[in-house]
Amino acid sequence: MAAIIEPRVLKGFRDFLPPAEMIRRIITESIEASLRSFGFVPIDTPALEYAEILFGKSLQNPPSPGVVPPGGSGTPGGSETEKQIYRFTDSGGRDVALRFDLTVPFARYAALHQQELHFPFKRYHIGKVWRGENTQRGRYREFTQCDFDIIGSDSPAADFEILLMIRSTLQSLGLDVTIKVNHRGLFNRFLSHIGLEGRSVEILRTVDKLAKTGIDVTRESLIAIAGEANTQKLLEFISAGRGSAADNSFENTLERITALSGGPSPESERLAMLKRFMNDSGAGSGDFSLDPSITRGLDYYTGVVFETFLTELPDIGSICSGGRYDNLAGLYSKNCICGVGSSIGLDRMIAALESLDKLPAVSGFSVAAIACIKQEDSGLYQALAAKFRQAGIPCEVLLEPASGQLVKQFVLAEKKGLRWIIIPGENPLNGPLTIRNLAGRKNIEGLSVDDIIAMISDF
Amino acid sequence: MAAIIEPRVLKGFRDFLPPAEMIRRIITESIEASLRSFGFVPIDTPALEYAEILFGKSLQNPPSPGVVPPGGSGTPGGSETEKQIYRFTDSGGRDVALRFDLTVPFARYAALHQQELHFPFKRYHIGKVWRGENTQRGRYREFTQCDFDIIGSDSPAADFEILLMIRSTLQSLGLDVTIKVNHRGLFNRFLSHIGLEGRSVEILRTVDKLAKTGIDVTRESLIAIAGEANTQKLLEFISAGRGSAADNSFENTLERITALSGGPSPESERLAMLKRFMNDSGAGSGDFSLDPSITRGLDYYTGVVFETFLTELPDIGSICSGGRYDNLAGLYSKNCICGVGSSIGLDRMIAALESLDKLPAVSGFSVAAIACIKQEDSGLYQALAAKFRQAGIPCEVLLEPASGQLVKQFVLAEKKGLRWIIIPGENPLNGPLTIRNLAGRKNIEGLSVDDIIAMISDF
Repeated sequence: MAAIIEPRVLKGFRDFLPPAEMIRRIITESIEASLRSFGFVPIDTPALEYAEILFGKSLQNPPSPGVVPPGGSGTPGGSETEKQIYRFTDSGGRDVALRFDLTVPFARYAALHQQELHFPFKRYHIGKVWRGENTQRGRYREFTQCDFDIIGSDSPAADFEILLMIRSTLQSLGLDVTIKVNHRGLFNRFLSHIGLEGRSVEILRTVDKLAKTGIDVTRESLIAIAGEANTQKLLEFISAGRGSAADNSFENTLERITALSGGPSPESERLAMLKRFMNDSGAGSGDFSLDPSITRGLDYYTGVVFETFLTELPDIGSICSGGRYDNLAGLYSKNCICGVGSSIGLDRMIAALESLDKLPAVSGFSVAAIACIKQEDSGLYQALAAKFRQAGIPCEVLLEPASGQLVKQFVLAEKKGLRWIIIPGENPLNGPLTIRNLAGRKNIEGLSVDDIIAMISDF
Repeated sequence: MAAIIEPRVLKGFRDFLPPAEMIRRIITESIEASLRSFGFVPIDTPALEYAEILFGKSLQNPPSPGVVPPGGSGTPGGSETEKQIYRFTDSGGRDVALRFDLTVPFARYAALHQQELHFPFKRYHIGKVWRGENTQRGRYREFTQCDFDIIGSDSPAADFEILLMIRSTLQSLGLDVTIKVNHRGLFNRFLSHIGLEGRSVEILRTVDKLAKTGIDVTRESLIAIAGEANTQKLLEFISAGRGSAADNSFENTLERITALSGGPSPESERLAMLKRFMNDSGAGSGDFSLDPSITRGLDYYTGVVFETFLTELPDIGSICSGGRYDNLAGLYSKNCICGVGSSIGLDRMIAALESLDKLPAVSGFSVAAIACIKQEDSGLYQALAAKFRQAGIPCEVLLEPASGQLVKQFVLAEKKGLRWIIIPGENPLNGPLTIRNLAGRKNIEGLSVDDIIAMISDF
């Protein structure tokens, strides 16, 4: 006999047992139902792409002769992201890599298919992505992202729809959220106004880390970049949303940062329009706030940016972030495609739901099972189960004969999370049936199929 | 400006545009609903695994220093399958590969988690797999499989449940099928009976190719393996289900192959039991047939085997095949885990549905849209759309103002596959509304939200 190969999964990768996978499915289906109700449609793209597409540049040094491992020595000067990518050479000598997010493939997709899409194009994409992350930080190397974007529209109505959809999608999962909004363009206008336009990227990145590093570290970093006097103004700007509850209303904060950035501008007007949309749509006053310290570190955002925090669990950080960009696919197309979009990290959201004890109550998809009394009657048991399924009641058939020990089947059904077990009699299809409520450990005898359908449906 | 990177996908890989992806989703959801109604639960496993797990053996020569490309020179003597696997070395020096099916990961999963599963365990798994196939044969290098198995039960009721579930799942997609059943063990018993037990593997593989190569080639091959006299007996056995319609009933065929294999046996009794189940469950006489030429070439099947053919499109070949195995996870565990399972090839099934003009009618998930008359009213439009969504009507909001040219919004809505467009008036939320049936090109004015909900729901 050959030696046993140790069954194991790669570090940072996960198997999902049925209880966990059922929860993932139910949550994903809830998110999809919400996105679809807003008119968003799904797309899919390959897991594997040309490395130059994912890296976003022509690569001078394709891996040779084989792999350039993420973090390996093959990409001197490679960025953090590049080091994390699973990259190798395929059998046709192609330099390929596993996608590390859904944004870059979407940019490539939009460039390739722009003649086939109807703009404004509202799409969602749920799929696995892979990164050779340091797993010690509690991160996974394979995880699921859920992205949604509206491209081909510069309208503030598109910005607002994304914000509203985030709120609606998370509310339908039982989560109360505050979405913190800002405008990168207004931040940049403010930087120009105080003569710091050349340091925009460094400053935005520093401010983006504020929540992680704290105000003192941020102040030190800003002084190093912009000097003492400007840092005072920067802190005034980014703190404009942080007064007392009465003081930090969206309107008051907007008034303050408008003044600090030199007066009304297209950017401040867009924020005012968004606030009008929020009021008109009936959003609660706590649903959206204006927080000038939100910048999103990523370079490609140019307009509205936002992060989403759980009211009951703010410390877990943003569970859904995004913003507006004015050139999604510039690396792959001469046409500018603007848009606004966002991404939900499914793992972090499930962790949050678990912490809040708000995971959907799911044990199995079936609620009932037919007990197996005599194996040779299994065809009749299936016909009986079909009657319940036709009535919309998922019903499974137990397969191993009881051999007089029906209790074993009760135990199995309970482990599977079923609520009812139906015990057929001498004439399984047309004779009387017994039903057992597994939680109550009570049998009721002499029922018809219709009796049982009514009983289970009423429960 | 940097040079444009050509947007392209790898050979054998695919982007899915919304119409195609919506169809894939709807079909997948239908399959899942059917599997769940039988009590099957989902699992998931990583896309990437240790290569030795996927190859099913300890590898003497891990790729060094980098990749062993599928089909490359790194695996002398590698099998066809091995040559097709996407295999490389990750940053931690691990010899890894992308999964090429869902069966091998499931075997590894069952071995690893056997203490956490409740047996008999009924699971399904829908996921992407990757093979460096020759794309000239019309095959893809990334495709979706849908596997479902019952493990930990040797019961004929489990065999039957898989068969019944295939029929039920495909019927719910509007497909009429015949499932051709055989028993590998009975075939082997017959081979022993005529003194050919040592040639079992070659003979089964030759017979498995019968449908592709034709009877003449099969006869020649069998003569080379087994000689003239035995070939006569082999052809009699595998043709036992191929008489006239009256003659080739399940019972008649079973009687013939039982006699040819030396009389009643546990294997012939299991087939008889399956036939009893079929009759008892109310299956039509054409739903299942016994075809002794079905062998499934794969070595790991030991019991019942089956293939599924479309009544209206038999030439496309089997769209769902499988069988019983007595040792799923022997490579990874000392415990024998028996089971029965099957796999649906989603791509082939969608191609079949398309050929038969039976693809689900889908244009978008939304049926209605709110026209954008004045951009500044977009918050009110969202509040209006929310009323329809709350009534269960997916409703989107158009984002770009009409600027007097409402017809442009009609055209966009039609392209999106919407049926209705709702045109708000001066008071979008509480004033009268106009609805336009896009196909009929007719407007009806002066309606309330409730009027429109009733109209759309009745349609």
